[in-house]
Amino acid sequence: MCEAHAYLSRGDQEELIFENVDRVDLQNECIVLENIFGQRKMLKAKIKELALVDHKIILEEVE
Amino acid sequence: MCEAHAYLSRGDQEELIFENVDRVDLQNECIVLENIFGQRKMLKAKIKELALVDHKIILEEVE
Repeated sequence: MCEAHAYLSRGDQEELIFENVDRVDLQNECIVLENIFGQRKMLKAKIKELALVDHKIILEEVE
Repeated sequence: MCEAHAYLSRGDQEELIFENVDRVDLQNECIVLENIFGQRKMLKAKIKELALVDHKIILEEVE
């Protein structure tokens, strides 16, 4: 499976916030993450970087 | 491998613009796509949606 894990970038740190993400929807300043089990998490953030071979979605908070 | 293909959303259409994407970097209004071979493509767009299990990155142009 090609899901990825979502991390929130805070300075030099990356905090794992949601695993096994399949779908990501971007809506204005919000981002909706949906995992392979259909569970969702919404947060006020934007995508900073993707590294798909490493299964990483790096987000940063929107002020 | 868990790379994805990048599509540009234009109305109801999705146009394939770059294949086998590994890394995506977001820089202001530009997006840099890098494929698994290290080739890059930069365009003025933002991410609209990801569907990783389907290997899809959906972009939309920034006006």
